Amino acid sequence: MRMYDIIQRKRDNYELTDEQIRYFVKGYTDGSIPDYQAAALLMAIYFNGMNDHETTTLTLSMAESGDMIDLSSVKGITVDKHSTGGVGDKTSLIIAPCVASLGFKVAKMSGRGLGHTGGTVDKLESIPGYRTSLDRNEFIDNVNRIGIALVGQSGNLAPADKKIYALRDVTATVGCLPLIVSSIMSKKIAAGSQNILLDVKVGTGSFTPKLEDAIKLAQKMVDVGKLAGRKIAALITNMDVPLGKAIGNSMEIIEACEILQNKGPADLREVCVELSAYMVLLCTNDSYENCRKKVLESLENGSAYNKFKQLVSVQGGDSTYIDNPDLFKKATYSYDIKATQSGYVFSMDTACIGEVSLMLGAGREKKEDFIDYEAGIYIHAKTGDKVEKGQVIATLHTNRKHIIHEAELEYLKTLTFSKNAPPHQKLIYQLVK
Amino acid sequence: MRMYDIIQRKRDNYELTDEQIRYFVKGYTDGSIPDYQAAALLMAIYFNGMNDHETTTLTLSMAESGDMIDLSSVKGITVDKHSTGGVGDKTSLIIAPCVASLGFKVAKMSGRGLGHTGGTVDKLESIPGYRTSLDRNEFIDNVNRIGIALVGQSGNLAPADKKIYALRDVTATVGCLPLIVSSIMSKKIAAGSQNILLDVKVGTGSFTPKLEDAIKLAQKMVDVGKLAGRKIAALITNMDVPLGKAIGNSMEIIEACEILQNKGPADLREVCVELSAYMVLLCTNDSYENCRKKVLESLENGSAYNKFKQLVSVQGGDSTYIDNPDLFKKATYSYDIKATQSGYVFSMDTACIGEVSLMLGAGREKKEDFIDYEAGIYIHAKTGDKVEKGQVIATLHTNRKHIIHEAELEYLKTLTFSKNAPPHQKLIYQLVK
Repeated sequence: MRMYDIIQRKRDNYELTDEQIRYFVKGYTDGSIPDYQAAALLMAIYFNGMNDHETTTLTLSMAESGDMIDLSSVKGITVDKHSTGGVGDKTSLIIAPCVASLGFKVAKMSGRGLGHTGGTVDKLESIPGYRTSLDRNEFIDNVNRIGIALVGQSGNLAPADKKIYALRDVTATVGCLPLIVSSIMSKKIAAGSQNILLDVKVGTGSFTPKLEDAIKLAQKMVDVGKLAGRKIAALITNMDVPLGKAIGNSMEIIEACEILQNKGPADLREVCVELSAYMVLLCTNDSYENCRKKVLESLENGSAYNKFKQLVSVQGGDSTYIDNPDLFKKATYSYDIKATQSGYVFSMDTACIGEVSLMLGAGREKKEDFIDYEAGIYIHAKTGDKVEKGQVIATLHTNRKHIIHEAELEYLKTLTFSKNAPPHQKLIYQLVK
Repeated sequence: MRMYDIIQRKRDNYELTDEQIRYFVKGYTDGSIPDYQAAALLMAIYFNGMNDHETTTLTLSMAESGDMIDLSSVKGITVDKHSTGGVGDKTSLIIAPCVASLGFKVAKMSGRGLGHTGGTVDKLESIPGYRTSLDRNEFIDNVNRIGIALVGQSGNLAPADKKIYALRDVTATVGCLPLIVSSIMSKKIAAGSQNILLDVKVGTGSFTPKLEDAIKLAQKMVDVGKLAGRKIAALITNMDVPLGKAIGNSMEIIEACEILQNKGPADLREVCVELSAYMVLLCTNDSYENCRKKVLESLENGSAYNKFKQLVSVQGGDSTYIDNPDLFKKATYSYDIKATQSGYVFSMDTACIGEVSLMLGAGREKKEDFIDYEAGIYIHAKTGDKVEKGQVIATLHTNRKHIIHEAELEYLKTLTFSKNAPPHQKLIYQLVK
C-alpha cells in the first residue's frame, strides 16, 4: 500500500477502504508517512469529504492509535458528555455530579482549554489541591466508589488526533466536517463510556454560528458514534449569549456551585437540567419526563451538590472552598463597565466576549501559557435585558491593570442596543439522535 | 503575510494576489515555508485551479527563483522550442540545427530524461566527447558564432520548479493544468529566448491522451507565454505511435542524422518540417509557405546537416560519428520480434513501448540511474502497416540478455491487429496561438 495512491483516490472522489484509512492513521502517527503527504490528503478530504463509514473508520483508528480506556471493571452504566465549546460553558461541573448522584457512572476525561477560558480541567485546578491527573487504577476505583471522576486527558489518548489536529491547524483544514467529527469522537470513543451525550453549541460564541451547520455536525457525530457501537444523542443548545453570568476559571466554579445549590442563573440551570435529563434518558428506559424530574430532585435535595463536594475531596481538593466561595482569591483589580446608552441589549458577540476574557488572563493563547484562575468577566446584563445609561452591565476581574481600558472598549464593541426588546431566543434548539 | 491565509484563500476559491504567489514561491524555495503547507496549497490549487494571471505570476516567480539566462548579448533573433515529450521524439536534434542554419539563434537548454528514453541532452552525450555543460560565456559565444548551442539545464535554472515538482510528484498533484504550465513555462522563460514554439503531444505515448486536453494545455501555455511578454505558439502533434522508427539514445542520433541528410522516416521528417516552419514563422513576418519552403531547402541542400555537424564539433563531440553512424557501439544483443498474426497493425500503446525501451536500458527509472546509450527498439511495422505472420516487426537492442524474453512479451502486448486498415491518423492536429 502506498500513501500516494490513498491521496490520489480521495482526490478523485472515491471512497477510501478501511485498510487505506488505517494505513494512513498508523503511518502518520508512527512517523512513516510524512507531513506533506498527510497535508495533501487532508486537503483532498476537505474538498471531497468522507461518508459515514469512512468517518467511522477514521474515528476508530484514531481512537485506537493510543490508550483505549477500559471501563469494563466499572460496575454500572457509564455515561459521558462532550460540549463543542462556548463562552461561560461550565455545564460539565454541574451535570457530571448530578448524573453521578442518580447512580450512573461518570468517568470523564476533559481537555485543557485553548482560547477564551480554560477547559473543565483548568477550572477544577482553580480549587486548591484538586488533582486532575490520577493513575488508571485510582481513576477506575473512584468511579466505582463514588460514581465519578473528572480528570485531564491522559498523554496517550488518541495521539493520532493530536498529530492530525496540529497539522490541520497550520494547513487550513480545520473546518471540515469528517475531520471535526473524527477528532471529537476519537477521544470520546477512546475514553470508553457506553453512553455519550453531545452538547452541540450554535451561535456567535461557537464554531457553528448557523443552526443548520450545528445540526449537520451533531447528526454526523451521532451517526458515527452509533456505527462505533455507542448509545449516543446530541442536544443543540444556544451559544449566542454566554452561558450563565460568570466567565473565568474560579468564577465559573463558584457559579457552578450556585446551580448545584439550586440557585444561580436560570439559563445555565435550564441547559444543565436538559443535558442531565437526556444523559439519564440515554442510560435507562425511563420516560423523558421522569428523567427530568429525577434531575430536578437531585439539584433540589442537595445530592448533586454533595456529589460535587465528594468529588472535590476525593481528588484532593479543598472542599471548604465549595461551601465558602469567598475563600477563592480575588483578582487585584475589578472594574465596572457601564451602559453607554439606555435600551435593551439587542445582541452580544459572544466569541469576542471570550476574547476579552482571554485579554484579562482567563485563557491560553498558546499551549504553554499560564492561566490566571482569578481573571474573568461577570456579566450583569445579557441579551434581552433592559438597561439605563450608566448602569453597570459587566465587571472585569484581572491582575493586568494595563489591559483594563482596552478590555472595556472591546467589551462594549461586542454589544448592540435597541429601543424594543429583541426577539426571544431559544435556549435548547433540538435533540438529534 | 502568512502562508496559512494563502492556503485558506485558494481553498475558498479566491484569486491569489501577485504578492501572495511570490511569497509562496520565495518562501518555499528558501525553506521558510514547510513542505506540508506547500502540499496543502498545491492540493487546493489542484481543486480550484488558477486563472491565467495567477498562472503567469506563478510562472514568472518560479523562473525568477534562480538564474535568468540573459540573451541580450546574442546578436539576432532568439528562438526556442519545447516538447511535452513522447516516445521516439528526437525532433530537437533536427529542428534546432535546421532553424539555426536559416540564421536564427537557438540557445537551447534541455532537461535529462526520466522514464522511457533519455532527453535530448542524454542522446547528445551518446556522441563521444560531446559536452552538454558549457559555462555561460562559451554558451553565448557559440550561439553568436555558429547560431546554436545545445546544453543541459544549469543547476540553478528555476530551482522553485525543481522543489515544487518533487513535492507534486509525491502528493498526487502532478496532473493539474496551472502547475504543469508553470513548471514548463518557468524554465522556458528563464532560458531567455524571445520566441518559443511548443510541441504539445497528443495520444497514447503522451501525458495528454485526449485532444481536448492537449489543446487546453497548449492554449494555457501560449496565454501565459504571451502575458510573460514572449512570442509564442504551439503545434499539437500526434503521439499515438512512436515518432520515427528508432527509440533509444544513439539510435535516435542516427535517425536524426538520416532526416538531416534528407532521408529517414516520413512521419518524423514531416513533424520536424512543420515545427521548424512555425519556429521560423514566429521569428519573421514571412508567410507560412515561404517559411516551410526555406526549411525544406535547408534539409535538401545539406545546410541543416552541416549545422548539426558544426554544433557537435564545437561542443567537443566526434563528428566522424555523424558522417559514419556505424562507428556508434552496438548493444551486445539484438533480437527480432515477429508478427504473431497477419493483418494490419491497428494500434500501438506507445507509452508501453516506451516502458519496453526502459526495460532494455535506454532510460532512467530514478534520477541516479545510468542510461545505456546502445539500448533501444527499432520499429519495422507501425500503426497502419500490413504484416504477414512471422514477419519481423521490431528489433530489440540491449545489453541485458535476461530481459529479452519479457521485453518481447511486453512489446507484443502493446499491439493490436485488424483485418482492414485502421483509419488514417493525423500527424499534425492544429496550431494554437
